[in-house]
Amino acid sequence: MSTQSEFSLIEHFFTDLTDARDDVILGIGDDCALLQCPSDHVMAVSIDTLVEGIHFFKDVDPESLGHKSLAVGLSDLAAMGAKPTWFTLALTLPDSNETWLKAFSKGLASLAKQHGIQLVGGDTTKGPLAISIQVHGFVKTDQALHRSGAQVGDLIYVSGSLGDAGSALQLKLQQWSDDALTSQDCNYLIQRLEKPTPRVELGQVLLKFATSAIDISDGLSSDLGHILKKSKVGATIDLTKIPLSSSLQKISKAEAVEFALSSGDDYELCFTIPVDKHEEFESLVDFEYSRIGMIEADLGLMAIGVDGQECMISGAGYDHFSTNS
Amino acid sequence: MSTQSEFSLIEHFFTDLTDARDDVILGIGDDCALLQCPSDHVMAVSIDTLVEGIHFFKDVDPESLGHKSLAVGLSDLAAMGAKPTWFTLALTLPDSNETWLKAFSKGLASLAKQHGIQLVGGDTTKGPLAISIQVHGFVKTDQALHRSGAQVGDLIYVSGSLGDAGSALQLKLQQWSDDALTSQDCNYLIQRLEKPTPRVELGQVLLKFATSAIDISDGLSSDLGHILKKSKVGATIDLTKIPLSSSLQKISKAEAVEFALSSGDDYELCFTIPVDKHEEFESLVDFEYSRIGMIEADLGLMAIGVDGQECMISGAGYDHFSTNS
Repeated sequence: MSTQSEFSLIEHFFTDLTDARDDVILGIGDDCALLQCPSDHVMAVSIDTLVEGIHFFKDVDPESLGHKSLAVGLSDLAAMGAKPTWFTLALTLPDSNETWLKAFSKGLASLAKQHGIQLVGGDTTKGPLAISIQVHGFVKTDQALHRSGAQVGDLIYVSGSLGDAGSALQLKLQQWSDDALTSQDCNYLIQRLEKPTPRVELGQVLLKFATSAIDISDGLSSDLGHILKKSKVGATIDLTKIPLSSSLQKISKAEAVEFALSSGDDYELCFTIPVDKHEEFESLVDFEYSRIGMIEADLGLMAIGVDGQECMISGAGYDHFSTNS
Repeated sequence: MSTQSEFSLIEHFFTDLTDARDDVILGIGDDCALLQCPSDHVMAVSIDTLVEGIHFFKDVDPESLGHKSLAVGLSDLAAMGAKPTWFTLALTLPDSNETWLKAFSKGLASLAKQHGIQLVGGDTTKGPLAISIQVHGFVKTDQALHRSGAQVGDLIYVSGSLGDAGSALQLKLQQWSDDALTSQDCNYLIQRLEKPTPRVELGQVLLKFATSAIDISDGLSSDLGHILKKSKVGATIDLTKIPLSSSLQKISKAEAVEFALSSGDDYELCFTIPVDKHEEFESLVDFEYSRIGMIEADLGLMAIGVDGQECMISGAGYDHFSTNS
């Protein structure tokens, strides 16, 4: 359904944006892309939309936006342990702004090249700024990481640090600040919000160890909650073990942990590993990780606070239909 | 990146919307869907966005909108000769309106069931109403219909009738009317605009006969123009042979042909068939078709008018960035 000028727009900015892959029989420029799927693998797909004013600010750097639009999908593939191959882009733009398109496509291409994936199709339409990207990846049949595989006794891990993106959102909204944060800290946190790193390589490593995985897009309590619900188990986590960046360590521990638990957009992975595999995992893995708790038979998510007391955590994360942002 | 409430929204309205397929290992409800691709086939994918105020009117029947959102993608698969399997839905909504969602998902599900395809993933976000759907289908390796395969001497065909959707758009915009049209005619034309029929079965038949194919989304001159450009050939078409519905036959021939040539949204197929195969095709095919011209060595699209005179046709179709609608 792309028209002549839309088509030219896509051709111009996007056709040679990413490196050509051998498994792309036909890329952008026909009614469909034609793709060769590897045998003995299942295809993992995920589609995500970012809308101006909801998922990003009007003044966001378009290069960062290009990066993030792809990163959120790659993060979903990472959580399944899938190796990314291709993506499609449905771009809705208020006008045909060449400067914006150049910067946006630069950010998109840079992350795509990093993962060796190709843009294989798209649609450019006129309308309020929004970006939908579908990512495609492959994982060996029966090896994919599900949310539903956590077992009682498994250890709970998270990658990287949590709460950075959530605190950055509050900084940008000017609804929160902390004098302990330098401008360098603020820039770091905002970078974490605007240019998240999808943990694709970690996802590959987890195939050998993890019983379940999810990406942390809505906050730890909400996303770990999905694992618990799908796996029909509960968990206890130690809030003192939640990893915080050096910037977020400067603010009050309670506030930092609250960002980690309840605010989204960190795009780290949360995963579970059986006790008998955890030593091998910890000795082999070349990524930043933290062991934060254990899967329990009793349903619900319990937390051991800084004071050593146990408390029940609610599962509410960021919610577009009940918050204003 | 879907949140708790968005997730519930998708789960509630969309999870069991379509029939389960054996090749869907994991559907909606994890970070990714997991899909089993058939061997000896290539995957055809296409993504399209429909935006309120650009592609459809604010007052459009949501059930028709659900149908059309999927139909445009299926039409792309039809043009490649691919058999549809799955689709994903990225739905951006201003609010969570249950009545609207029910009607929209009913239209979507009805067309999906007709083609035996499954909704395997989605993202629901808040924002100005827009729908992106990616369709997936499969076609045997090296059998897919491209735009680039037309050969000099091939006969040019179109399916169904053309110009209906274009005239309906002008009726809806109140920029055009014709006293010869009854309200029944107007309803028929509007139905053609709002609930187009993707020619998926015809696409399958064409695999055995056609050298090239495209779906007519932007108007015959523009879409046939894509075949000519990609195939590096020209064509002559006979304007008296352009198929018109009985409703459109009531208006002036010149006006009806202009709608057929220059306005989009018909979602019929335009395809080319070698002379030595055309008799077999015409004797076998169970679809409405019209033979309208021939591929020529001289570049450009020539037309023989009602008066028998030849004229050059421009390739301009509907263009979102240069028209208001």
